[in-house]
Amino acid sequence: MEDRAWLQAMLDFEAALARAVAPPDAAEAIAAACVADHFDVEDLGISTADYGTPVPGLLKQLRAKLPEDAAAHVHRGATSQDVVDTAAMLVARRALAPLIEDLQGAADACAALAQRFRDTPMAGRTLLQQAAPTTFGLKAAIWMSGLDEALRQFRDIRESGLAVQLGGAVGTLAALGDGGLEAVSAVARSLELPEPGLPWHTVRMVPARLACALGEAGGAIGTVALDVVLLAQTEVAEVAEAGGEGRGGSSTLPHKRNPVGAIAVRACTARVPGLVSTMLATMAQEHERGAGTWQAEWETISDLLRLTGSAASALREVLEGLEPDPDRMRANLDATGGLLMTESVVTALTPSLGRGRAQELVEQAARTALEQGRPVRDVLAGEPAVMDALGDDGLDAALSPDNYLGVARQLVDRALEARRS
Amino acid sequence: MEDRAWLQAMLDFEAALARAVAPPDAAEAIAAACVADHFDVEDLGISTADYGTPVPGLLKQLRAKLPEDAAAHVHRGATSQDVVDTAAMLVARRALAPLIEDLQGAADACAALAQRFRDTPMAGRTLLQQAAPTTFGLKAAIWMSGLDEALRQFRDIRESGLAVQLGGAVGTLAALGDGGLEAVSAVARSLELPEPGLPWHTVRMVPARLACALGEAGGAIGTVALDVVLLAQTEVAEVAEAGGEGRGGSSTLPHKRNPVGAIAVRACTARVPGLVSTMLATMAQEHERGAGTWQAEWETISDLLRLTGSAASALREVLEGLEPDPDRMRANLDATGGLLMTESVVTALTPSLGRGRAQELVEQAARTALEQGRPVRDVLAGEPAVMDALGDDGLDAALSPDNYLGVARQLVDRALEARRS
Amino acid sequence: MEDRAWLQAMLDFEAALARAVAPPDAAEAIAAACVADHFDVEDLGISTADYGTPVPGLLKQLRAKLPEDAAAHVHRGATSQDVVDTAAMLVARRALAPLIEDLQGAADACAALAQRFRDTPMAGRTLLQQAAPTTFGLKAAIWMSGLDEALRQFRDIRESGLAVQLGGAVGTLAALGDGGLEAVSAVARSLELPEPGLPWHTVRMVPARLACALGEAGGAIGTVALDVVLLAQTEVAEVAEAGGEGRGGSSTLPHKRNPVGAIAVRACTARVPGLVSTMLATMAQEHERGAGTWQAEWETISDLLRLTGSAASALREVLEGLEPDPDRMRANLDATGGLLMTESVVTALTPSLGRGRAQELVEQAARTALEQGRPVRDVLAGEPAVMDALGDDGLDAALSPDNYLGVARQLVDRALEARRS
Amino acid sequence: MEDRAWLQAMLDFEAALARAVAPPDAAEAIAAACVADHFDVEDLGISTADYGTPVPGLLKQLRAKLPEDAAAHVHRGATSQDVVDTAAMLVARRALAPLIEDLQGAADACAALAQRFRDTPMAGRTLLQQAAPTTFGLKAAIWMSGLDEALRQFRDIRESGLAVQLGGAVGTLAALGDGGLEAVSAVARSLELPEPGLPWHTVRMVPARLACALGEAGGAIGTVALDVVLLAQTEVAEVAEAGGEGRGGSSTLPHKRNPVGAIAVRACTARVPGLVSTMLATMAQEHERGAGTWQAEWETISDLLRLTGSAASALREVLEGLEPDPDRMRANLDATGGLLMTESVVTALTPSLGRGRAQELVEQAARTALEQGRPVRDVLAGEPAVMDALGDDGLDAALSPDNYLGVARQLVDRALEARRS
Repeated sequence: MEDRAWLQAMLDFEAALARAVAPPDAAEAIAAACVADHFDVEDLGISTADYGTPVPGLLKQLRAKLPEDAAAHVHRGATSQDVVDTAAMLVARRALAPLIEDLQGAADACAALAQRFRDTPMAGRTLLQQAAPTTFGLKAAIWMSGLDEALRQFRDIRESGLAVQLGGAVGTLAALGDGGLEAVSAVARSLELPEPGLPWHTVRMVPARLACALGEAGGAIGTVALDVVLLAQTEVAEVAEAGGEGRGGSSTLPHKRNPVGAIAVRACTARVPGLVSTMLATMAQEHERGAGTWQAEWETISDLLRLTGSAASALREVLEGLEPDPDRMRANLDATGGLLMTESVVTALTPSLGRGRAQELVEQAARTALEQGRPVRDVLAGEPAVMDALGDDGLDAALSPDNYLGVARQLVDRALEARRS
Repeated sequence: MEDRAWLQAMLDFEAALARAVAPPDAAEAIAAACVADHFDVEDLGISTADYGTPVPGLLKQLRAKLPEDAAAHVHRGATSQDVVDTAAMLVARRALAPLIEDLQGAADACAALAQRFRDTPMAGRTLLQQAAPTTFGLKAAIWMSGLDEALRQFRDIRESGLAVQLGGAVGTLAALGDGGLEAVSAVARSLELPEPGLPWHTVRMVPARLACALGEAGGAIGTVALDVVLLAQTEVAEVAEAGGEGRGGSSTLPHKRNPVGAIAVRACTARVPGLVSTMLATMAQEHERGAGTWQAEWETISDLLRLTGSAASALREVLEGLEPDPDRMRANLDATGGLLMTESVVTALTPSLGRGRAQELVEQAARTALEQGRPVRDVLAGEPAVMDALGDDGLDAALSPDNYLGVARQLVDRALEARRS
Repeated sequence: MEDRAWLQAMLDFEAALARAVAPPDAAEAIAAACVADHFDVEDLGISTADYGTPVPGLLKQLRAKLPEDAAAHVHRGATSQDVVDTAAMLVARRALAPLIEDLQGAADACAALAQRFRDTPMAGRTLLQQAAPTTFGLKAAIWMSGLDEALRQFRDIRESGLAVQLGGAVGTLAALGDGGLEAVSAVARSLELPEPGLPWHTVRMVPARLACALGEAGGAIGTVALDVVLLAQTEVAEVAEAGGEGRGGSSTLPHKRNPVGAIAVRACTARVPGLVSTMLATMAQEHERGAGTWQAEWETISDLLRLTGSAASALREVLEGLEPDPDRMRANLDATGGLLMTESVVTALTPSLGRGRAQELVEQAARTALEQGRPVRDVLAGEPAVMDALGDDGLDAALSPDNYLGVARQLVDRALEARRS
Repeated sequence: MEDRAWLQAMLDFEAALARAVAPPDAAEAIAAACVADHFDVEDLGISTADYGTPVPGLLKQLRAKLPEDAAAHVHRGATSQDVVDTAAMLVARRALAPLIEDLQGAADACAALAQRFRDTPMAGRTLLQQAAPTTFGLKAAIWMSGLDEALRQFRDIRESGLAVQLGGAVGTLAALGDGGLEAVSAVARSLELPEPGLPWHTVRMVPARLACALGEAGGAIGTVALDVVLLAQTEVAEVAEAGGEGRGGSSTLPHKRNPVGAIAVRACTARVPGLVSTMLATMAQEHERGAGTWQAEWETISDLLRLTGSAASALREVLEGLEPDPDRMRANLDATGGLLMTESVVTALTPSLGRGRAQELVEQAARTALEQGRPVRDVLAGEPAVMDALGDDGLDAALSPDNYLGVARQLVDRALEARRS
């Protein structure tokens, strides 16, 4: 499937080039012959090994399908790199469509979760330790912000970050005489790709930008999947992936419901950073065509598009079917007997006692509670300084997660509002 | 020096936070104490090991410098990650200034080379084989295009791609009660950093975008340095770096003039892709704070800023002092006895003979010339079909590099024109 | 500190070389002058920028400390790369000593945990879901196996994987006339480093093997730290790191006891894979000396040694102080009401019912238990086929984790036995 | 093809497991059914997406091919990871065979070149500048040393670095009762793979070592290809790859003979470091099975085996057909008019003038020669101090590359000798 996509994209380039530089009859004949299904892919593979690029074999097959006078106009003015680089742009544009759609779907699902669980408290965890309460809505909104930023980058790239490459043997388009600039414009119009200011055969900012955007998206996607895997742990159990016949089952453990979607995401995104480093490391390309560095890009960019695309699709499915469990979130919040609320108590005590003393006192109470296995409320209630400052109700209020969500709701509202407009 | 930059940036955050949330007197006292020179860096290092971040030790020292009532307002509402993440933004902004200046200088030097050598033919080389003529001006203009694109990205990032991080323990700013949103705005204004829509403590698009832009710039810079190293080879000798007392000398080889600037660039840029992959791989951060993944960013982003900055500075120096040798370029163009011009001859013969036959004939002549060590002109002149089609003058014209530069000059002019406007 | 280590190592090379090739008096004078403390490090930094290596500046300072007749013998026959490459070997050997000691300490601590908790059941977790019981002893023994393999590699490298580099300008040792081979042997003996069969200036297997061993060790270390972080989660709480004044505290959350040791490990090991990729990517070095690729190795290998060393040291501390909580392990095992034991029940039922039917029946019971929130024992006890096959006692036995630990104990015993011998 | 190799390897594991734990009749039936050709690969792909591993789908198909009583014994005691990990070992072992053969062939070709060109002087080049003479034989011998070291590692791995993985759900082999250790031994014997001391499901030293060996080999291979590309440059032309119908031709430049073999090598090896970093970064696997980290290994290790294998095969072809040009090597040596021999002259003058004065004088002569475009011999001959010390013949001798090859020949002889024994 991927081989076919590349093959058709190379043929699309040849067709567009023919329309730009060949007489109309020849151009139409060439364009009509540029249909991937009619080509022998296996034979192409063999000639690729001989020439180091798929282009000579492709041209041979294409010319063989044409009358001699049309065949003479095939590939005029272009070099192998023009074909492959422009084809990469077409392959990327086609791959970006479902990727953008899936990322959009995933971000929409986050927005829906943020709205629906706007007021649902849960434990916020830093360094994997419960730290202070947050809401599941805020968590989902923050997930969303990463996906939306990735989306913004892909839309920019689809709009203006791809570019035709057409330079001929060394970038001067010499084989087209004075017609070089015109031909570039015509090919760009025909393929609906931006026209670059200069050929980019050895200055690889275009594929590098694409690779990095895929890398950044992989990070934004992967961090959501990591959170899902962690929240789905048996001992945490605050979310589950949607079940379904067979989904997530184990070959030997009948009761397991594994977060297979999130794991699939992570299996893809874990492979992205290394591939991005390859795209960056091969940017140093020799003179007018890289000797191995350029060729290393082809499968790497394909892999990046495929892996990020799969990850986005799997994440969308995970998020659209995600089953959060607010009761379990509440139970986990309560599990430490109030220890999670110590920052809140410090804050409540600070006006009366000063921050230094408040912190010291609460730290001591937390330690006592931990050591003696008592709820921290009991320990604090035994401290006259605390009761003087807060009283029973004040202490309860200071220990209630719902009272210590800060601006979580406002942040969610603002983010959803900004997104709608 | 780098440690100091981080330290001051963290203190700048604390000063800005104090101005946002503390009473005016306390805020001024705190801000006045936030001077890196007055801090004990060694002691900070020790406490960093204990706490896993430099912040507790920093706060302890800062509070010790203040009267108790001011000390109580230090760091209010913030968490360690807020300090370090916002400090990273300030460190980055400061590092971007010389980086942008050096990249600008390097790109300007390319523009000057493109203008000055607009009409200077040289061998274009693909896969490190001479392929067809180009101009040194076009080569320099293409170098420029990569540097300018890197510049564009850095300017965007400096303008809108950095952002304050302030979220408190878990992103809700709970310790600031209702004042959280206001505090973020105030800190952003005070530090002249953009205010983010949401805290970004575990969705790392901001540092990832910065890292990738540094990676892409490293590629754009490194490919120029590679070309310089290759052009400076003893056997090619088309450019030399500016000499100078001691520059480029060898400890044992008195005659050598090594391209030390370009090599220094490559020594930096070769290390960038691996570091970018680290930044991307650590984007998957757990819950409300990464457990090791976040901490791995700090030195990595420092290294990326330092290496890319050094590379840009060294490249600028290389380009500003570069000594191209047009005579040697001409001599190298002529060294293959016209073989480099075969595409030109094919193009010239195509109207008369058709492309297929023209190519076949010229390919045969090239092979004969190579095998017999004769200039290709002699072989071609012995072919009646060639002489019928072109005549002596036509053959000479077809073999002259100056006549086969395509749109090299127009591309340079267009690129320089676009750059000026 | 690292700069000094490199400086002294370079001087050690010059001293050894002098002893190998200079007259005894000159050699002694040179060796006596080779003391890092007497050199001006700042000045070295400046000349490094001019020459692209630290060696010319180093030699200038060294010669200035010597009478003219001794100075004339400094560095005879060697090139800059000989100095830096051999110094890298010495730096590595010195860094390997504490690294090996800490890894040994960490592996010993694992062995002690394996012994002590040999019979302590805990939940085994696959894909972060409880899957079936294992023992903490087996987990610790498996951790140990990775650390021991890393140790084995480092011991091999220290024994035979480092090597003197001495080849002169291009590897022929021409400046030493016929004395080249002899000089290599003498320097190797003097520095107690292996003598290589051939100089390795551009075939970088020696530093690459070292880098990869550090990378593999980083993985073996990092996976232990990940397990510790996961086991220390508030909701799991099966291990804690040793506390202590200030250790693991939070700047705002008084009750937290963060697994700072394990996080420090992860902050180091997360940076290792990218650095290894740099070492591998720069192995393609040009001709007789890499033009930027070689120079990129220096700080990279230093970083790798430092990060892996810090990770090993921190892991050792974590493991030596680790506080496992067998009660909590048991509680977590029981938390799913027996679901974890379903594989055991399938195994127990298989002789009577056949595996297919046993699995189907247990899977159904698990689903019912999950849906109705009942212990799986109750559901199974209501199945006549189960009771016929196992009876009450048999069902209890099949549901007891202690009866379903397979060969965990034997594996631990065997591993500890093998380790002792 | 790769998918089939994995499928068959997984089936080989199931067959070996059946022989180890099932009754003889069932075992034979299972083994007989384990033939990849009889499985529906497309259906497997679909079920892989549902379960996150290919194993449940594989087992379903396998069981469907068997009578019920045999089907009940399929996969007994094992978990998905056992199947995939052990299959990876089998896939690796099969891939190592041609890889080792090709590396051996490439190293043998180097040995032949080292022998044949033992006495052929050529320019040694540091930082891509001619530095001093060496021999092509020494260069080839150094290439050989890297390939031989890679070979040594692969042979070690094939011998003892692969290992059966069989641990059951969480490593305890509980489903096999007391028979677990026995089963591991039997499977290991059956598959002729080493038996590990402990299961290695989450301590990934085995695949990491394999990946790193592939990475190191990629570097050793890639550096040879880089040298070939550089030596084949039009302006250097000291080697050419073997031609042949179509090999190395260009789609538009009839005269070009590109070093397509070396470029193919580089296109493969450039992708290896990023993939190795992925293998190292995913070593931190969670508890008893990695959640995404493990799954990311599968295609990565396949890619590494395939790319390194292709690179070795292409390099062997390059080296077996390589056409060095000793005349051109000599011509390049002479091209700088003796500048390359300045170290030799310094060495020759040192006994009379002292090294300091000798170096100064020769450096000055080199500078004069460069500035005035004169042969350095003329300049040196005008220096009375030089003529007094060396005389005409001595100067000629000092300027002759053949007299300044140091121990190049001895190094080659010694290396070839060591290799034979």
